[in-house]
Amino acid sequence: MLFLEDFQPGTVAEFGSRTVTEDEIIAFATAFDPQTFHVDREAARSSNFGGIVASGWHTVSLTCRMFVDNFMNGTSLMGGIGADEVRWLKPVRPGDTLNVRCSVLAARRSRSKPDRGSVHIKLETFDQTGDKVLAFTVTALLGARPA
Amino acid sequence: MLFLEDFQPGTVAEFGSRTVTEDEIIAFATAFDPQTFHVDREAARSSNFGGIVASGWHTVSLTCRMFVDNFMNGTSLMGGIGADEVRWLKPVRPGDTLNVRCSVLAARRSRSKPDRGSVHIKLETFDQTGDKVLAFTVTALLGARPA
Repeated sequence: MLFLEDFQPGTVAEFGSRTVTEDEIIAFATAFDPQTFHVDREAARSSNFGGIVASGWHTVSLTCRMFVDNFMNGTSLMGGIGADEVRWLKPVRPGDTLNVRCSVLAARRSRSKPDRGSVHIKLETFDQTGDKVLAFTVTALLGARPA
Repeated sequence: MLFLEDFQPGTVAEFGSRTVTEDEIIAFATAFDPQTFHVDREAARSSNFGGIVASGWHTVSLTCRMFVDNFMNGTSLMGGIGADEVRWLKPVRPGDTLNVRCSVLAARRSRSKPDRGSVHIKLETFDQTGDKVLAFTVTALLGARPA
């Protein structure tokens, strides 16, 4: 198991290869973000985007899944505190394949509860052409290594 | 149809009454955030949370749905630019009923593309006890009223 002390600022990891289908994009957006350019093929065609694009929160959620599977799995993660500077930089379209770069920015032990601390991590998501489609940072709570 | 010019800083709206079930929490997290305290009833019981809690991205997504249905529907919304200061303030548990307060912070016409502009909005999500469970801001692109 990895603990707070194992998260070293400067660590970078790259992972993931997740192709997004049109059905998935429409299903997510129908549930959570039913704007026409996410759910309606006809309306999307005449929109600013020229076709169906994924909800930004879908892209964030897919990035979260790759992050949990490949980076936070097997750690003392106790939950998320927050996220900052979420930027949707390029539309994600049906058939795009996403991968993630994850960079540890900081790790700090809690003063009031020294058995835990926060880790600040930058996540950047790229499509198959190498273009960045999403960036954000997350702050998560992790347990410290038991004495 | 509402346009950029119709979004006045200081406008506040409250809406939504969305009860979250345990099955939904587990289904979302199984797809996007498979941490044990989101997907495994037994493991969640012995976690920091004492039981299943919703993925923070699930709460954001449910808030997005209420925002789109009740506030952005029927507007010239062209897509999301970003989100900031996402804070998960209290765990959301099965059976909780969420509502949203939405405050327009700013609206600015684009200098380079004056047919559109950005709106900066604060979203705060509360549970049935009145406790705030989530806060964040979003910046969205909207079309200006045609001349």
